[in-house]
Amino acid sequence: MPHRIRPERKQMAPRNPDWEAVVRASFARQGIMGLIGAELCALSPGRCEIRLPFRPDLTQQHGYFHAGVTSTIVDSAGGYAGLTLMPAGAEMLTVEFKLNLLAPADGELLAAEGEVLKSGRNLVITRGEVYAIRGGKATHCASMQQTLMTMHPKEGK
Amino acid sequence: MPHRIRPERKQMAPRNPDWEAVVRASFARQGIMGLIGAELCALSPGRCEIRLPFRPDLTQQHGYFHAGVTSTIVDSAGGYAGLTLMPAGAEMLTVEFKLNLLAPADGELLAAEGEVLKSGRNLVITRGEVYAIRGGKATHCASMQQTLMTMHPKEGK
Amino acid sequence: MPHRIRPERKQMAPRNPDWEAVVRASFARQGIMGLIGAELCALSPGRCEIRLPFRPDLTQQHGYFHAGVTSTIVDSAGGYAGLTLMPAGAEMLTVEFKLNLLAPADGELLAAEGEVLKSGRNLVITRGEVYAIRGGKATHCASMQQTLMTMHPKEGK
Amino acid sequence: MPHRIRPERKQMAPRNPDWEAVVRASFARQGIMGLIGAELCALSPGRCEIRLPFRPDLTQQHGYFHAGVTSTIVDSAGGYAGLTLMPAGAEMLTVEFKLNLLAPADGELLAAEGEVLKSGRNLVITRGEVYAIRGGKATHCASMQQTLMTMHPKEGK
Repeated sequence: MPHRIRPERKQMAPRNPDWEAVVRASFARQGIMGLIGAELCALSPGRCEIRLPFRPDLTQQHGYFHAGVTSTIVDSAGGYAGLTLMPAGAEMLTVEFKLNLLAPADGELLAAEGEVLKSGRNLVITRGEVYAIRGGKATHCASMQQTLMTMHPKEGK
Repeated sequence: MPHRIRPERKQMAPRNPDWEAVVRASFARQGIMGLIGAELCALSPGRCEIRLPFRPDLTQQHGYFHAGVTSTIVDSAGGYAGLTLMPAGAEMLTVEFKLNLLAPADGELLAAEGEVLKSGRNLVITRGEVYAIRGGKATHCASMQQTLMTMHPKEGK
Repeated sequence: MPHRIRPERKQMAPRNPDWEAVVRASFARQGIMGLIGAELCALSPGRCEIRLPFRPDLTQQHGYFHAGVTSTIVDSAGGYAGLTLMPAGAEMLTVEFKLNLLAPADGELLAAEGEVLKSGRNLVITRGEVYAIRGGKATHCASMQQTLMTMHPKEGK
Repeated sequence: MPHRIRPERKQMAPRNPDWEAVVRASFARQGIMGLIGAELCALSPGRCEIRLPFRPDLTQQHGYFHAGVTSTIVDSAGGYAGLTLMPAGAEMLTVEFKLNLLAPADGELLAAEGEVLKSGRNLVITRGEVYAIRGGKATHCASMQQTLMTMHPKEGK
């Protein structure tokens, strides 16, 4: 039994040579990322990391990052992990996700990693982890499991 | 079999006479709500509604409200639905939630309703619905199921 | 804002006049339903109820129905609620579900109700409720939120 | 950022020297495991594996293992992964779980692995993976994320 679950290698090969430019352009169109100050960091086929520095206007009532803010970056990290593997012209939509909050999101920085678990023709399943970083120490503060849907480009276009 | 699920009546009686003031004060401390422009609207024991007008800086790549923004208001709507029922001094933390996106969140306004399904001693289970409103017509765009944990006040304080 | 969420009426019209026979035949092919003794009860477009009498060999360590048994009947109740609305020849597959356990499944009988929340072209979203019935009194013991995928029949067949 | 998420070491140290006997005795009391023919296999602190040979009476309508059967063994694998870390006399209850089905559960054998992600005072978060094994080849067919609650023994007992 493999201990570390990974999709088969053929699933993780990009089908669009411009995958990185496509992902970065889509991220740039997400208005919310500018508002909260999130940055698209590491990107590789089937993986995406988004980082978000702390600001007092991103908080819940105890002064930690709000769970919705955590959701915002980890949902996009999962979605863009999926988009790295899509053919040209395809889009990814979130069908659903489930997020467990493991510890208060208390840090100078949040880092969300999305990773593709399974890439099928119409559905892509991902996992995401979020870390709160303070003084160089990362606390694992959230875990996500997500379902994405591929919107294939219409033929003839 | 009841078709409309409701907690038993005794579960839905507020235990803190100041429940409304407590909820409104907690909402006011959530920095993210000010940033995105969300408002706490209808509030009753076991129920909470939060509304959010559209702005271009709340969007995903197609110009609709981002799923993380939807999460932000429905997570808080569920959490404050739970808080209406808590004893004085208790706090609510989100343990986890699962959100299905049913339709694009395409509207002039998002309205998120949270409702308590079960209020236990340590855990509270809620559901949430989100509607995108355009021209007076509401489209049901998301459904949530959420687990909250009660933080009881320490004795002697 | 509608308080009771229902799909629009046109979504809930059966597209296959033989929907009931199709659902009952599929249920009869589920070997697990015979093993545990589950029965398909009420069936209407977009809704399905499955009942399961208690037996000691369906239990977890405290003698209540096992959460997996609860899952088994409510996953099928949701799936068959969806199948009532499918065109002839289509099949329903479960993509994912999330189940909250609200109370011990302690009863002479479990009743699981599945209901379609949204029926789209490729994906169907349902909710499910499970009740434990003892002495005529129903205790709400579980709530599910589920995503199904339609397998459309291949053309030319 | 750690790529492989693991709870801190101190979280994963058993607190009851008899943890293995406690887990095996609890498993033996789950009537459903005998009915379906599931076996408790590998067990270590924070991890549990349950295996289930194929039988025609465990199936859904296409002859694969039913999603509810998959749920049954992975829910217990997660719960017993948690129980390995509990103090003497404590019990684990499932609060909720979410299961994604990645591929048909088509095999001679299903193997479910549960692993603790975070072990807190009152709540334990786990993940689970299920493999369908045929001719020695394992197909990853389901992924779970689960919340458990600790029932601490009453003092004075």
